[in-house]
Amino acid sequence: MPDYKAPLRDIQFVMHEVLDAEEHYKVLRGNDDVNRELVDAIIEEGAKFCQNELAPINRSGDEEGCGFEDGVVTTPAGFKEAYQKYVEGGWPSLAAPEDQGGQGLPNSIGIVMSEMMGTANWSWGMYPGLSHGALKTLEEHGTDEQKETYLKPLISGEWTGTMCLTEPHCGTDLGILRTKAEPNADGSYAITGTKIFISAGDHDFVDNIVHIVLARLPDAPKGTKGISLFIVPKVNVNDDGSLADRNGVVCGSIEHKMGIKASATCVMNFEGAKGYLIGPPNRGLNCMFTFMNTARVGTALQGLAASEGSFQGALTYAKERLAMRALSGPKAPEKEADPIIVHPDVRRMLLTQKAFAEGGRAMAYYLAQHSDIVEQGSDEEARKASDEMMAFLTPIAKAFMTETGLEAANNGVQVFGGHGFIREWGMEQIVRDTRIATLYEGTTGVQALDLLGRKVMLTQGRLLKLFTKEVHKFCVQNEGNEAIKDLVDTLASYNKDWGDLTTQIGMKAMQNQEEIGAASVDYLMYSGYVCFAYFWALMAKVAQQKLDEGAGEEGFYKAKLQTARFYFKRLLPRAKMHAECIAGGLDVLMDMEEENFAFYVE
Amino acid sequence: MPDYKAPLRDIQFVMHEVLDAEEHYKVLRGNDDVNRELVDAIIEEGAKFCQNELAPINRSGDEEGCGFEDGVVTTPAGFKEAYQKYVEGGWPSLAAPEDQGGQGLPNSIGIVMSEMMGTANWSWGMYPGLSHGALKTLEEHGTDEQKETYLKPLISGEWTGTMCLTEPHCGTDLGILRTKAEPNADGSYAITGTKIFISAGDHDFVDNIVHIVLARLPDAPKGTKGISLFIVPKVNVNDDGSLADRNGVVCGSIEHKMGIKASATCVMNFEGAKGYLIGPPNRGLNCMFTFMNTARVGTALQGLAASEGSFQGALTYAKERLAMRALSGPKAPEKEADPIIVHPDVRRMLLTQKAFAEGGRAMAYYLAQHSDIVEQGSDEEARKASDEMMAFLTPIAKAFMTETGLEAANNGVQVFGGHGFIREWGMEQIVRDTRIATLYEGTTGVQALDLLGRKVMLTQGRLLKLFTKEVHKFCVQNEGNEAIKDLVDTLASYNKDWGDLTTQIGMKAMQNQEEIGAASVDYLMYSGYVCFAYFWALMAKVAQQKLDEGAGEEGFYKAKLQTARFYFKRLLPRAKMHAECIAGGLDVLMDMEEENFAFYVE
Repeated sequence: MPDYKAPLRDIQFVMHEVLDAEEHYKVLRGNDDVNRELVDAIIEEGAKFCQNELAPINRSGDEEGCGFEDGVVTTPAGFKEAYQKYVEGGWPSLAAPEDQGGQGLPNSIGIVMSEMMGTANWSWGMYPGLSHGALKTLEEHGTDEQKETYLKPLISGEWTGTMCLTEPHCGTDLGILRTKAEPNADGSYAITGTKIFISAGDHDFVDNIVHIVLARLPDAPKGTKGISLFIVPKVNVNDDGSLADRNGVVCGSIEHKMGIKASATCVMNFEGAKGYLIGPPNRGLNCMFTFMNTARVGTALQGLAASEGSFQGALTYAKERLAMRALSGPKAPEKEADPIIVHPDVRRMLLTQKAFAEGGRAMAYYLAQHSDIVEQGSDEEARKASDEMMAFLTPIAKAFMTETGLEAANNGVQVFGGHGFIREWGMEQIVRDTRIATLYEGTTGVQALDLLGRKVMLTQGRLLKLFTKEVHKFCVQNEGNEAIKDLVDTLASYNKDWGDLTTQIGMKAMQNQEEIGAASVDYLMYSGYVCFAYFWALMAKVAQQKLDEGAGEEGFYKAKLQTARFYFKRLLPRAKMHAECIAGGLDVLMDMEEENFAFYVE
Repeated sequence: MPDYKAPLRDIQFVMHEVLDAEEHYKVLRGNDDVNRELVDAIIEEGAKFCQNELAPINRSGDEEGCGFEDGVVTTPAGFKEAYQKYVEGGWPSLAAPEDQGGQGLPNSIGIVMSEMMGTANWSWGMYPGLSHGALKTLEEHGTDEQKETYLKPLISGEWTGTMCLTEPHCGTDLGILRTKAEPNADGSYAITGTKIFISAGDHDFVDNIVHIVLARLPDAPKGTKGISLFIVPKVNVNDDGSLADRNGVVCGSIEHKMGIKASATCVMNFEGAKGYLIGPPNRGLNCMFTFMNTARVGTALQGLAASEGSFQGALTYAKERLAMRALSGPKAPEKEADPIIVHPDVRRMLLTQKAFAEGGRAMAYYLAQHSDIVEQGSDEEARKASDEMMAFLTPIAKAFMTETGLEAANNGVQVFGGHGFIREWGMEQIVRDTRIATLYEGTTGVQALDLLGRKVMLTQGRLLKLFTKEVHKFCVQNEGNEAIKDLVDTLASYNKDWGDLTTQIGMKAMQNQEEIGAASVDYLMYSGYVCFAYFWALMAKVAQQKLDEGAGEEGFYKAKLQTARFYFKRLLPRAKMHAECIAGGLDVLMDMEEENFAFYVE
């Protein structure tokens, strides 16, 4: 399998040189003293953990998968031990609030750790990752007592958490969920229903699991406005915090999946399980919106992980594998054939992976800085602006980074030729693991509707302008920058077209709402390509500056500029194609009668 | 898992209404009397076999996979029995020559059976499919004695065959292969070496397996001009045709793969195995070219199979699964939500699958008619023209149909949402099985170099013109056809641009050969989209004609026109994007120094 090497140099470049992390920390409450030295030390330590503990059990975890017997899930060899080391290292509490026993560091540091864990071993990372949703919900909506009982052990890593949303008949459409919550005499609720696709729903890492469960109160209105949120512990908790008897929730089975096989995906049966209302009744979905952006950015990281991981594997192979001679003549005449990295098309695949990985890293870290400001920003107006920027960019990051991550992973297989299809090389595992990323936490189609319908159309383009103005400002500031003029001019043109395209769709949608659905995925992909163009232009600007300053590391900075130009010339044109597909319109999608899609002779 | 229903109506449409099969058979030696009734009866019988025998063991075959112990491969439950029925039904000999015990029917009938087998169960189909390569080699290059001994049992299905090309260090670059053939005293050769990725290299269907092996004679020149072809039977054969002792070839292990798990992919160890030279010494690769087109079209069918199979599964699910309401208001108010087929983006995914499946079927059957003419055509000039058309279109069909098949398969998963990732639904299996299709029989990159380098540039565009002229002729003939004017005009424009694009690349390549590699995959994809546009225009024309004639089946013909328009409006714009990526040029691929692709802190 491909070794994982944490891309520390690139991480530092994005955090410090492009996004000026130290300056950023200064506006964060309680973190204005965080400095580069501390951050780099944490990340280096994290890199060691990911490289030494997580990467080595990635392939074996896939082969072994999870076990299930009599309602009990077992994880693959080494998974539990790695979790113990993770807890001992204090990693679960990194970005958790200090008053709950956390270290209170910014999310933007936590996200780097998440990226590295995810690239080294996505399946493993899902266990602590899922705790995050439960933790955030408790942090924002729990009573002091609930926090004391459930939040602290989540932060310490002593327990883990889950989010129980999906049911067999509904995932996207939570408005039709059926799980019931009936009041008990003691103020608690009896939760009854079946939840599916519950990641980390059961496992052997810890003694207790805190489920956050969506269910309906007896008198709840129909639809999304009748859903409430409940805490349902796997094991009931005594007043002193010690564990009592098993609660009425049990894992009914685990799914057999295409990938992330070492992550237990559970059917959870709630049979009158004791639950505690969290947040106001019937406002469960609203409570969840507060952390949904974080969860989606977390999934976007799976795309980044796939791009980075498959790039590392393919690059190593492309330098070693010998096949054919370069069309312009032998490049390694002393060998029986040239290493395949000499071939332009192999380079096209590698550079695509690289552009997606590094562009995605910039976008993810940029978003994480905004989430820092939302949570810890000292300026109220800045917090609001960052919140809106998050709202706009999150569906793009989630869908675009996972779609491109899947493409990068497939490129990884392709560079290996037939060997890419063989399990022992580890490249096909990345494709299988990553395939879930465009599905869970809202499919690409759901993200696209969220972007175009809710974030863009409902705000009459206000959120879009928030971002395009930033891009515009960058372009204006750099219009005299001759060295990167080609990039800046192109970016400015796409940025302008983005607005025009939006107006065109808006006009059509006034006639027929369905136009939004017809345009949505192409619109999201267009948006993604332009966002990445912005982040690549930002990075190119910094790289050019460093070269001009004679800062050293010429190869590194030149490669940044070269990758930016590759992106602009050979990937960004896809945005125009998406715009043209949007112009193709709605009718060609809707004209066909449902019964005419296929004619089979029975 | 999705049921397989043979798309008989569409098969008939393409064969008879679009490609006028009966008229086509009239120019084939020995087959001028084949009529529609006979053909349809054969295909209907074949459909039953695929639906009833192959489809039911597709999922179980994937779960069980192949077994391996002490050099012996076992296939999953039901596989051997299905093969026996296949042989009893006389299917192996369908398109084999009559003088060798075959039925002598045209390839264009055999390809329909291959499509149906492949869609029902690709892994199973590989066992008889691989015989084809061995069979064709023996048919064209074997001596009478070799044919008598090895060809006849292959045609009857009593034995199966393999093609042993790849070695651990080389696949694409066969010029560096190392397997040795040393002369024995009796005129046979001792074959020694290791071959990998040998599909059907060992299994339990039959008593003997005929390996066609690439190896080097002791005095052979280096490179591709020193490779010879040998027949190596698993079990030696006595003069009377009965089986003698085991030959020195044994399966060393089977690969653990991403997909096609029920197809045994073997490491074959040749340890002084007795082999017989077939064809002239050192001309082995040339001998193989004769059937390589057929093998590649066979792999193109895997793309078609993926598109068709995943479309069938997704369509059924999209009609049943309920989620959300249409943006324009409820479409199934009596249900708790609308079936997801009402949503434009779900339709976009389904129509993409449908356009790829039906477009691919037209292209594959069109190619099969050309291969009929190459093999059985009565007119020498027509044979030559068809041979050249095959040479040009085959790399396009192989790469484009498999790339789009993979996209269609991924759409199938996407329509299912999270359930698409779960094995029991069968949708993810199609992705895993199909992933190999862009790799084996020459990767997409290899096909693209073959197309642009060998077929287009080396002939100064002659082969390209052969096809673009046919497209041009169609456009001219239909320029007055108002009902499909939109399609014809667009096709004519893309067809013209194809020539211009080729000229531009040619000019650049005169400066630097590497430009061909830089443009190749985008050029192939451009070519594929334009080819499909041609086939969709052909189909649209026929459908419009039938509607005008009032031939009945209005829904079927209207759906053809609607799919054609969907294709032109929402998929064909991708061709322009590929052209723009080509314009992005070579430098952005080659500028980066090999050591600057990544910087890891060790």
